[in-house]
Amino acid sequence: MAPRWAFEDFEVGTEIELGSKTVTAEEIVEFASQFDAQPMHLDEEAGKASILGGLSASGWHSCCMLMRLMCDRFLLDSTSQGAPGVDYVRWKKPVLAGDRLAGISVVEEKRLSSTRPGLGFVTCRHELTNQHGKVVMELQNTGMFLTREAAGL
Amino acid sequence: MAPRWAFEDFEVGTEIELGSKTVTAEEIVEFASQFDAQPMHLDEEAGKASILGGLSASGWHSCCMLMRLMCDRFLLDSTSQGAPGVDYVRWKKPVLAGDRLAGISVVEEKRLSSTRPGLGFVTCRHELTNQHGKVVMELQNTGMFLTREAAGL
Repeated sequence: MAPRWAFEDFEVGTEIELGSKTVTAEEIVEFASQFDAQPMHLDEEAGKASILGGLSASGWHSCCMLMRLMCDRFLLDSTSQGAPGVDYVRWKKPVLAGDRLAGISVVEEKRLSSTRPGLGFVTCRHELTNQHGKVVMELQNTGMFLTREAAGL
Repeated sequence: MAPRWAFEDFEVGTEIELGSKTVTAEEIVEFASQFDAQPMHLDEEAGKASILGGLSASGWHSCCMLMRLMCDRFLLDSTSQGAPGVDYVRWKKPVLAGDRLAGISVVEEKRLSSTRPGLGFVTCRHELTNQHGKVVMELQNTGMFLTREAAGL
């Protein structure tokens, strides 16, 4: 199957709706138990006693949930060659058990590699927004994608 | 138990050894299946065919493994109040199945909040280094910590 998204398919200003995902208490606790066992990510009462106001997802969990939405919506159907890193992550609001998060990716910049023919860099700003319309996380990164020709498309 | 690490305990230049962790193929595949199902994170052959050179961990998995090392070494024994985000992440080398990663956190900057008495910001640069002495990931973020007085210590 030819991938839908190659370097040429991203234009500055392109907005990609990533769909949505409901965050369960079980997922929050399971993730935190593995990677970020701070009390507010493990226990409702500890969450209520913290500035987060309830059992809340690790910020790293939010990053991972965004990544999953990106994979399902376009990355797994693209010429992606990975990414060299993340420009920034801003955790703006708590992500609480039961929240429904919707994602969007917006293309901010694109350019062809000056050293690797057939490879291009696409910089996107990504947001997760909760069911109250509040942006809970903003993240920017630059992905590498093959051109259609380099991918044999 | 009084936490070991409060705002006062971080000094610019403080280096915190985070210990180490061996990354298994099973962990790489389990994480990728949940959050980043790109072929090079799921399958040895696909990894070998990619620029990563083998079954390799998602960059987000590396972030999460670093967070776990930080939790075990100092965050869970601190006055941490979470973090507003991440300044940057650089994925510099592939993390392959069987790699042993060692972590270090270095305090780069600290300051008291001008608006919230008893709260301080500590900026750290964190590195994960593999068994060949190569830095595989570099990450900087700013955590919030209570002072000893604000934490009642």
